[in-house]
Amino acid sequence: MRSVLTAALAAVDPEQAVRAHLRLHNGRLHVADQVYDLDSYRRIIVLGAGKAGAPMAQAVETVLGERITDGCVVVKYGHEATTERVRIRQAAHPVPDQAGLDAGAEIVQLAGSAEPDDLVICLLSGGGSALLESLPAGISLADLRATTDLLLASGATINEMNALRKHLSLVKGGQLARAIAPATLITLVLSDVVGSPLDVIASGPTVPDQTTWADAWGVVERYQLGDRLPRPVHTRLQAGLVGDLPDTPKPGDVAFERVQTVIVADNAVAAAAAREEAERQGYDSLILSTFIEGEAASIARLAVALAREVQTHRRPVSPPACLILGGETTVSLGEDHGKGGRNQELALAAALLLDGMQGITVVSLATDGTDGPTDAAGGFADGDTMDSGRAIGLDAHAHLARHDAYPFLQATGNLLMTGPTRTNVNDLVFIFVESA
Amino acid sequence: MRSVLTAALAAVDPEQAVRAHLRLHNGRLHVADQVYDLDSYRRIIVLGAGKAGAPMAQAVETVLGERITDGCVVVKYGHEATTERVRIRQAAHPVPDQAGLDAGAEIVQLAGSAEPDDLVICLLSGGGSALLESLPAGISLADLRATTDLLLASGATINEMNALRKHLSLVKGGQLARAIAPATLITLVLSDVVGSPLDVIASGPTVPDQTTWADAWGVVERYQLGDRLPRPVHTRLQAGLVGDLPDTPKPGDVAFERVQTVIVADNAVAAAAAREEAERQGYDSLILSTFIEGEAASIARLAVALAREVQTHRRPVSPPACLILGGETTVSLGEDHGKGGRNQELALAAALLLDGMQGITVVSLATDGTDGPTDAAGGFADGDTMDSGRAIGLDAHAHLARHDAYPFLQATGNLLMTGPTRTNVNDLVFIFVESA
Repeated sequence: MRSVLTAALAAVDPEQAVRAHLRLHNGRLHVADQVYDLDSYRRIIVLGAGKAGAPMAQAVETVLGERITDGCVVVKYGHEATTERVRIRQAAHPVPDQAGLDAGAEIVQLAGSAEPDDLVICLLSGGGSALLESLPAGISLADLRATTDLLLASGATINEMNALRKHLSLVKGGQLARAIAPATLITLVLSDVVGSPLDVIASGPTVPDQTTWADAWGVVERYQLGDRLPRPVHTRLQAGLVGDLPDTPKPGDVAFERVQTVIVADNAVAAAAAREEAERQGYDSLILSTFIEGEAASIARLAVALAREVQTHRRPVSPPACLILGGETTVSLGEDHGKGGRNQELALAAALLLDGMQGITVVSLATDGTDGPTDAAGGFADGDTMDSGRAIGLDAHAHLARHDAYPFLQATGNLLMTGPTRTNVNDLVFIFVESA
Repeated sequence: MRSVLTAALAAVDPEQAVRAHLRLHNGRLHVADQVYDLDSYRRIIVLGAGKAGAPMAQAVETVLGERITDGCVVVKYGHEATTERVRIRQAAHPVPDQAGLDAGAEIVQLAGSAEPDDLVICLLSGGGSALLESLPAGISLADLRATTDLLLASGATINEMNALRKHLSLVKGGQLARAIAPATLITLVLSDVVGSPLDVIASGPTVPDQTTWADAWGVVERYQLGDRLPRPVHTRLQAGLVGDLPDTPKPGDVAFERVQTVIVADNAVAAAAAREEAERQGYDSLILSTFIEGEAASIARLAVALAREVQTHRRPVSPPACLILGGETTVSLGEDHGKGGRNQELALAAALLLDGMQGITVVSLATDGTDGPTDAAGGFADGDTMDSGRAIGLDAHAHLARHDAYPFLQATGNLLMTGPTRTNVNDLVFIFVESA
């Protein structure tokens, strides 16, 4: 089990992931299926934003070293690291601050300076949407926050919020790519969004945007926000609606003519590495989905249902087997709750269902090493976990009802402790099944 | 889609299922991996209980005809059918009535009359636990009902209730097999319990029981029912506890020396038949679990997560694919709710998640043809279902919130209508995926 988890985390380590996708050979840079002859570029500029920005920049420096001309990457406070040529700026997350705007201005300026014979490498990871921002003239941070608060209170969906926010930004929704064009652009993405939708990760600064001024204004109308919007926001949306401002670049736009986008690490990459290691350890292994969402306890029930099928009917694979699910669950908390995280809750819920069963272990891991507001990365459970709890007088049902998994799993020795991993590609659930 | 559903239902038709497992060849009866030389048996007696009892008895008559000496099967009111040699008795379900006790007495008498050179064929299906009952002297139907009501109100688990009820019966928990021994016994089971646990289906009258008098009394103590139990029930449990009464037969008991038990139809059988037909239709098909339980809307989310993995990463199989889930979901109803069933709810929840997606169809089927209190067997949804609803002014979110799937799916043409199927092996969910 330990080696499977380690393999998964190693594959999505930001530095390793970037280095694995950026190979220099005889002066040619290989990035997935593309090759770039570095002699044909005058300058190489590194831009980026996200919590994993610093180790990603370090990796680019390791590969390209002095070939890098200039660079700026914005990361969350405390996520900095030492770099040689790429400047690391720190800013606030999840609520943007002035430092973020200053970094955004620097990045937009660098992007705009790129010439047709320049190569720009853009590094995106989780948190990039808040960390990388450049606001249109007249719109302040306070306006942005007021608008966000209105949207949150209105019940707008995440897609609706994104449509509106892309139209209040000068970088989101493909606009950074427009600033970089006609230079060549390689975007390397470390995804913390389930399913890795490129237009959502860091608000898609370098990929086409499908949303329009009409969509943005539609959100305002649907939730009747017109009267309450900050005046400069209202004015900008109206100007866009009547055609006085350019829209975000759409698919086919010239901004994307020389753009390559590569996901260097996401949940699917971690799951694939885990599967490979599980196979090496002799488990028949299968990735069932990396799109899992929903209540943690529901996914625990699913995990046990899958394990029982393997044990009873040897389907879809025979024991010893390792089934893998990826995604991100949620826990609906009541007012009064204990200590835990979604992965620990999943493990505890599995413990209840597995009580007394032989040969099934369910493991739930937060790939960032921090599950909920705890120092654990998740938990695991098998048919003996409940007995361990009973032996020391713990009531698992009561712990689950209060969303208080941490103390239970800590006492039974069922916590996963990895420490912070510098990466985040959501969660992985492993279902190990031996014959009963 | 239609042929896959038809294949699943055909495989678990009670008459077809029994006939497929009971083959007569040159005077020898083949039942799964066992062979019985009919010349070596003096009499053949057919016993049974459950909603599917009549067609199962018809199937045995079709195979063995005049070789059947005697027989009695108890079914639910309205579930009778014409038979030649096996008497069909009708009784109440889910609350037992006197007709059930009378039939139980007749069945116990027949069981007790079996000699060592007799062959008994026992037919069990859903509802058998309520339909087949024989109470110990002194315990009345009213006592049984009062005890059941106490248990339901106490919060006892289903396993705890079963442990107690087996000890208030003369047939449940292997006791019918004890009455039949040392005659040879073949039990044919049509399972409507998820996972097909033989000790639960019809309360396991012909298989070993793991629960003891101590377990039964433990339930009374745990929920402090001692003072409120009907006096005869209290007296019997106490007598059992101190060893004055025999316990239910345990694994290894002589009662099971000449017993063969075969599941002729259950969710896994239906799923396997569906998979075979889906493969024939060109779908790469996989059964992921037949142990699925939980909220219908959660399973819808899971179904879509699996479909997205197939479309995006071609895992665990490539499109065109058909993934199959089996089990039984639940719907947590509020006080005010509309018309629907768990399968229709699952389909409507899937419709919301699939809105606008191409190439994914989710189908949810109640194998008894009756999903909830409706005339539909379930429903299906794809990326166009929401559009169909919008076109006629229906709000899918509102319908789902009120658990009112039937009118929505009826209006959009997304109901499954099979009519009653005479069988019940829980529900099946099919996830058809084409390339996007």
